[in-house]
Amino acid sequence: MPTFEVIIGVDLGATNIHSLLVNKEGQILARDFRPTLGQEGKEKTLSQITSSIQTLQKKAEDLGASSLLGVGIGSPGPLSASEGIIYHSPNIPEWEDLPLVAILEDRLKMPVFLENDANAAALGEWWKGAGKGTDYLFLLTLGTGVGGGVIIEGEVYHGAWDAGAELGHMIIKEGGMICGCGARGCLEAYASATGVIKRTRAYLKQGHSTILTRLMGNNPENLTCEMVFKAAEQQDELAMHIVRETGRYLGIGVASLINIFNPQKVILAGGMMRSGHILLDEVRKYAFLNCLKASRKDVEIVAAKLGDDAGAIGAAATVLKRKGII
Amino acid sequence: MPTFEVIIGVDLGATNIHSLLVNKEGQILARDFRPTLGQEGKEKTLSQITSSIQTLQKKAEDLGASSLLGVGIGSPGPLSASEGIIYHSPNIPEWEDLPLVAILEDRLKMPVFLENDANAAALGEWWKGAGKGTDYLFLLTLGTGVGGGVIIEGEVYHGAWDAGAELGHMIIKEGGMICGCGARGCLEAYASATGVIKRTRAYLKQGHSTILTRLMGNNPENLTCEMVFKAAEQQDELAMHIVRETGRYLGIGVASLINIFNPQKVILAGGMMRSGHILLDEVRKYAFLNCLKASRKDVEIVAAKLGDDAGAIGAAATVLKRKGII
Repeated sequence: MPTFEVIIGVDLGATNIHSLLVNKEGQILARDFRPTLGQEGKEKTLSQITSSIQTLQKKAEDLGASSLLGVGIGSPGPLSASEGIIYHSPNIPEWEDLPLVAILEDRLKMPVFLENDANAAALGEWWKGAGKGTDYLFLLTLGTGVGGGVIIEGEVYHGAWDAGAELGHMIIKEGGMICGCGARGCLEAYASATGVIKRTRAYLKQGHSTILTRLMGNNPENLTCEMVFKAAEQQDELAMHIVRETGRYLGIGVASLINIFNPQKVILAGGMMRSGHILLDEVRKYAFLNCLKASRKDVEIVAAKLGDDAGAIGAAATVLKRKGII
Repeated sequence: MPTFEVIIGVDLGATNIHSLLVNKEGQILARDFRPTLGQEGKEKTLSQITSSIQTLQKKAEDLGASSLLGVGIGSPGPLSASEGIIYHSPNIPEWEDLPLVAILEDRLKMPVFLENDANAAALGEWWKGAGKGTDYLFLLTLGTGVGGGVIIEGEVYHGAWDAGAELGHMIIKEGGMICGCGARGCLEAYASATGVIKRTRAYLKQGHSTILTRLMGNNPENLTCEMVFKAAEQQDELAMHIVRETGRYLGIGVASLINIFNPQKVILAGGMMRSGHILLDEVRKYAFLNCLKASRKDVEIVAAKLGDDAGAIGAAATVLKRKGII
């Protein structure tokens, strides 16, 4: 009988848990999707994760899998991937110094591996997405914050103590906008959804005529980053200016990172890329204008391919990586 | 008879060639120092390098070395370390796409290895200097420009096409001072000797009272970065302000690089560090204020230890690295 080995990848998001059952070739065999419920206490999210995994474990049995190699979890940090500990979770208040891997291994009786969410997305895109076939890439996740993942010689870069690749906290404008981290001028302060909303609200105070006024029901509190990108798609002048400006800030950050890493691919992922063609064009323009000739030569700046599956596929790939299979 | 193997490391500078004969433990056995003569044609510098190596080769014989393992060359780029080619040399106009390794191997009949000068300095400090015993570090060379070298898991980081670790071309101030590379706001534009001189000249136009006026004989054309650092040591108010400001720019760049690499050590090297205690204090202050808590925990920001020998020792280490000895 041929072996049919499978892996489970779990993307632990702020709002939802998104889990995939995949085979060793990265094909998706089944999915599970349920709320994170981070506000309902420490145990609630743990049991949501466990149920999600058990649901897919059952599917694996039904599909006739000969063995389940393990579970990979992609989670927001700060965390220690090597020790399997989540130091602090921005969306699950009761998770402080939580030994997630030990807890899940005890409950599930199978190997569990932890990875930072943006690192997992980078690994997912490297394995099965826009970075397939490359050895050097970096990925930026454009969401509430700006996350970063770096692949060097086909491996996730972790740094000396698992805290590396915080690409969103590169300072692109000394003395600039305040960032959630306390510093001024981080890429995240400008190019995250939070940064886009802040910058848009400042422009709105100047009384520009824009369809955003209608979209947000005349209340700036209702403004979302999505609205800005939608308005830009509809050729709204202010919104287009803001999206282009976001692309310029991103392009400048990407130029610096190209000079630092000399990568083959730069991958932009996250919610903002769903309507991101104007953004991507500007990022390319400013990145290529500002990076060194030697590094510009062969690098490609592209949108992620796996969409919302990147994190979970990368989490599954983490299992194969740690076991030395890929 | 015990084996006594030696290596030659050559630091090919803009003005001088600085070569060292070292043993496998990195101890310096002999030195050779001679002018680069880059303006005297393509062949002149080649013969200066060859003579320097042959002088040390003779010394190795006199000392009873049983074998010379090879020669490492640290050179300014752009270059291909893996192919042994110098694409363009800022100080030797006739060196364009020069296959330096092939030429020297043909003349010397021994293995020759090429490395970027800042990478070589980083490797030298990792092997025998301020980075000894660490696996993750980055080094900035503060000279006419700002060079960068990165060590990851004890190996020099090259990137996909040998063009990585250009840390001086990280943009720290979007829209800021123009850099030699064409971009605006690079770390190099602010924190190189060239940047310090430019910023000082701008301040001088405002008519501040400073001992710099005397040091430069009342002619801003005579101003050097060294004068600014000397005046700062003598408590000159303007000079101290400029050195502190340079430290702030560097500190901000270092904070970003700490967030990106999560290193154990950050090493500052180059001429500016000779009178650099005020500078180093400011770099530490601004780097620690601006980097993330998780990465700040254990990182140390220190001055290089090997001084002008770092490049040549690193070039020698390159031979041992490529041969898999260290």
